[in-house]
Amino acid sequence: MIFIFTGNGKGKTTSAIGQAVRVIGQGERAAIIQFIKSRKWAAGEDIALKVFGKNLKFIKGGKGFVGIMGDRLPKSLHKKAAEKTLRKAKKEIFSKKYGLVVLDEINVALSLKLVKLNEVLKIIKMAPKETDLILTGRDSPKTLIKEADLVTEFKEIRHPFKKGVWGKKGREY
Amino acid sequence: MIFIFTGNGKGKTTSAIGQAVRVIGQGERAAIIQFIKSRKWAAGEDIALKVFGKNLKFIKGGKGFVGIMGDRLPKSLHKKAAEKTLRKAKKEIFSKKYGLVVLDEINVALSLKLVKLNEVLKIIKMAPKETDLILTGRDSPKTLIKEADLVTEFKEIRHPFKKGVWGKKGREY
Repeated sequence: MIFIFTGNGKGKTTSAIGQAVRVIGQGERAAIIQFIKSRKWAAGEDIALKVFGKNLKFIKGGKGFVGIMGDRLPKSLHKKAAEKTLRKAKKEIFSKKYGLVVLDEINVALSLKLVKLNEVLKIIKMAPKETDLILTGRDSPKTLIKEADLVTEFKEIRHPFKKGVWGKKGREY
Repeated sequence: MIFIFTGNGKGKTTSAIGQAVRVIGQGERAAIIQFIKSRKWAAGEDIALKVFGKNLKFIKGGKGFVGIMGDRLPKSLHKKAAEKTLRKAKKEIFSKKYGLVVLDEINVALSLKLVKLNEVLKIIKMAPKETDLILTGRDSPKTLIKEADLVTEFKEIRHPFKKGVWGKKGREY
């Protein structure tokens, strides 16, 4: 099954992480493959998820924020990183080793045109039946949403950033 | 901070679980206290989260679905269980041991009038500053939403149940 977690609200990545925990608890393996997010920026989950050892594969393939928050990398480098991450994702998905593969922030990589929509569509159509996929990130393309079995829009009703509270360790990352 | 995850879409509980994982990764402790959900029904997370040992307290205080799915328990018993769970939650919250306490499905317990709204409001207003709370479940009362710092509505755009696919082990539980 194909799950899409999109929308501007908080909780998409953590929901995919929770789903991976659930799958592992039922005796299967999971993989989380992150686009955009870089190894230079350690999130709580990077550390905590190590406890699952071989049952959870965790790949951080991005180069950080694209075009915002002081990013000075040429877009070509972000693109190269995203394409490489997609190749890794493909390998894991078609290995048939996992009950769940999370493609975290892939919707953002798609909307920034770092990876090709056609290629992602091909992957989700051909993914092995025993492997569920979760695609997260805001601005999921409509063509992708059409192909999904389950879509949740995470809608921001209120967010403390708007009141001047900034990202807090262990909360936003 | 008070987080509310509400709405009819999938991902609220898993998102709270992911948030707990994140908090643990940043070196704090977390507690997940579940209303409605019963120990008789083992979800993937019940098993997988044991790996975090003392860093994660997990309490399942419910008696199962209320008034649906063949539930024949008198409502008074559901109410008793929910009230007891709220007492336990209060104890954990005010112990100041946790960076995060999740009150899973408490919105449902509120909308079914198993616990008193005034009591929950009092708890979230007096909760220690070092302990964030996440309240999950559909139909969160408006008065509660007003008191929260961050609110995400999980909106169902598509769900396979509607196509006749039923809850799958490791996916829905």
